[in-house]
This record gives sequence, C-alpha cells and structure tokens, in this order.
Amino acid sequence: MEFSSKLIEKAVDEMAQFPGVGKRTALRLILHLLKQPKEHTTSLVTALQKMREEIKFCASCYNISDTDVCEICVNASRDKTLICVVEDIRDVMAIENTGQYRGMYHVLGGKISPIEGIGPDDLTIESLIDKVQTGAVKELVFALSSTIEGDTTNFYIFRRIENCKIKITTIARGIAVGDELEYADEITLGRSILHRIPFESSLKST
Amino acid sequence: MEFSSKLIEKAVDEMAQFPGVGKRTALRLILHLLKQPKEHTTSLVTALQKMREEIKFCASCYNISDTDVCEICVNASRDKTLICVVEDIRDVMAIENTGQYRGMYHVLGGKISPIEGIGPDDLTIESLIDKVQTGAVKELVFALSSTIEGDTTNFYIFRRIENCKIKITTIARGIAVGDELEYADEITLGRSILHRIPFESSLKST
Repeated sequence: MEFSSKLIEKAVDEMAQFPGVGKRTALRLILHLLKQPKEHTTSLVTALQKMREEIKFCASCYNISDTDVCEICVNASRDKTLICVVEDIRDVMAIENTGQYRGMYHVLGGKISPIEGIGPDDLTIESLIDKVQTGAVKELVFALSSTIEGDTTNFYIFRRIENCKIKITTIARGIAVGDELEYADEITLGRSILHRIPFESSLKST
Repeated sequence: MEFSSKLIEKAVDEMAQFPGVGKRTALRLILHLLKQPKEHTTSLVTALQKMREEIKFCASCYNISDTDVCEICVNASRDKTLICVVEDIRDVMAIENTGQYRGMYHVLGGKISPIEGIGPDDLTIESLIDKVQTGAVKELVFALSSTIEGDTTNFYIFRRIENCKIKITTIARGIAVGDELEYADEITLGRSILHRIPFESSLKST
C-alpha cells in the first residue's frame, strides 16, 4: 500500500499494530477520524493516553483498577477465603455480570503457552501461590478457558499447591442453558453427563 | 457491559465510536495497549493527533495531502485536461497503483445518499463543476462504485454539466482478469458482452 501522505502512512502503521487490524482496516478507521471534527480525535487520544498512564493493576488480585487496590478486593462483604483464577479482566467482568459469585479473583494476565513464549514467570502465578500458602484461602476455582494452554496452566498451579490443604475446583462445563443437545459437541455433552448434578440443585441455581 | 475502571470505560467508549468496532472489540484493543509498554500508546496517540492536526485537503482535487496542493496536482507531467471523479482517497490510491492513469483526480468525499442525509452540498461537486466550466477540462471519467448512490451521484453531475462540451466517460465494468465466466454475476457479464472492445485493444492494455 502506497500513501501520498507521510502523516497518513505513520498513523496507519500505528493502528495496524492492533491485533486483527490490517492496513486496509486501519486506513478505514483513520478516514473515519478525518471525517469527524478535530475535537473527536483529541477526545479519543486523550482517553487512550490517560488510561494508559493512570491505569493501575490491583496490588492484590492484578485486576485492572483506578486505585491501588481494586473495588472487589476492598469490599468487606466478599468472601476472602474463595479465589477464582482467571486469565484477564474480561473474565472478571463476565463473572461479575452473572451476580452469582461473591469471592475474590486472581488475574493471571495470560496462560502458559510455550508456543507464544509465555512461561509461569510471565504470569502472576507466584503471587497466587504465596496467597494460598498464607493459609487464609479455603478454595481455589479455576476459570480459565479449556484449551491446551488453559489446562496446562491449571495443572501447573495444581501441582505447585497440591500439598496445601485447600479445595481446588473448576467451573462446570456442559451444555449452555437453552442449547439443543443435538448441536452440542461430543466432549461438552460427555462432560455434561459425567458431571451431572442432583435435580434439586438445578432448581436452586437461578 | 460494566467496567470496574472509569478510565477503561472512557477509553472503550471512545474506541467503540469507530465504524465496525463494538465495545467488545474496543476492549480487546485496549487490553492489547495495556500489555504493551507505555511508549507504544504514546507513539500511537502522537501519530493520530499529528495526522489529524496537520493533514490537509488538496485545494484543487481534495485529495489528502501533507501540503496545500497535493503531489499529483503539482506534477507538471500529468494531463490536466483529464479528471477522474472518485469517492475518497482509497480510490485514488487504488488507481495510482495500477500505473495506467496519468490524469488528475477530483475527490468527492462521499456519494449522494438521501438515506444517510448526504446531499450534493456535502460533497465537493460545486468545485468540480467550476473546474469543468473554466473550459480547461476535456474529459471527465466517473470512477464511483456502481451502487444506487454511485449512479445517482454520477447522474447528478452529468445533468449539471451536460451542456458543457466535454467528453464524459465511466470506467469499464466487466469480468475481472483471471475470473471464470461461470461464477460471474449476470449484470457484470451482461455489461462485459455489451461493451466488448476490439481484440487488438486488449493486446495493448498491459
């Protein structure tokens, strides 16, 4: 792609560094900015810059936060003995939206992935293990996605803490509420049957 | 979508104003920024801001330019009597890349679209008509996309200048080079046959 303007070329190159954004998309986004008043760009740029400069990672759970310790960690009404292990803040948001969880979180910041060169030291695993070893935690809930990387990460953490006397659980896998059985994949349906629950429990869960 | 951080929320809202970017995508892009060093965001933000502040629209053809008059318009070796009418700078780039065109351009900045509330006055049509009326232009080539909006725009301009003694042409529609006839749509194939050209001309065109 050749640009007659160096300014456009530089802006396109920068935008195209986002994952999933190619040069054509980047150019489309930039032409959008050009069609809007200048204030629009200023507002976007200010929000991004301010966010990147001022955002903090919670010193306890590594969730993204405007303060040193996040709202969830300072909330006295939440169960400090229960920790849900997630990959990133989108998972925290998803679980919070269910309104079904009143424990704490621990955000790993990724999954162990030898292919992408991400090892245990690149994640916040040590800090999680420290928390568990203080003895204040009763249950750890794994809520990573069930991929090879997710399973590897779960297993790595499990091996590191298996001698600690805590309950280690993982979120239930199964057919989504409202889904037809015939369209479900075999592995999910298989797990659904294997880990069936008493009918009475299902009545309570909404 | 609920965010625990106001900074993230504001940044997501800003990013989600791009066409085709929803809140989920915006969040994904922003989390990407957070995983990169701060300098990365500064560099992106500076490029966007600088581009928006300093970019100019060529005073003659409305192409995007770093200077008051664009490189194409100041180029003495180009044919000033031939003007290609396009929608935006992406079209200029596409045609320039072919290396087959040595005339000038006129960038309309959009197409007439009553549905989107875009009328002739929102485009650079008056300026194009002024150019034609000076008598210096011999041929106008319409190169808008063949949609209802594109055809409407072509026809509007045609009616405004039909009394001027200039040649008005439109780019050829037909089967793309390398495409199989059997997969072509009927309208395109129909036009291909209707507007067939002497075989000898096809030998010259590459």
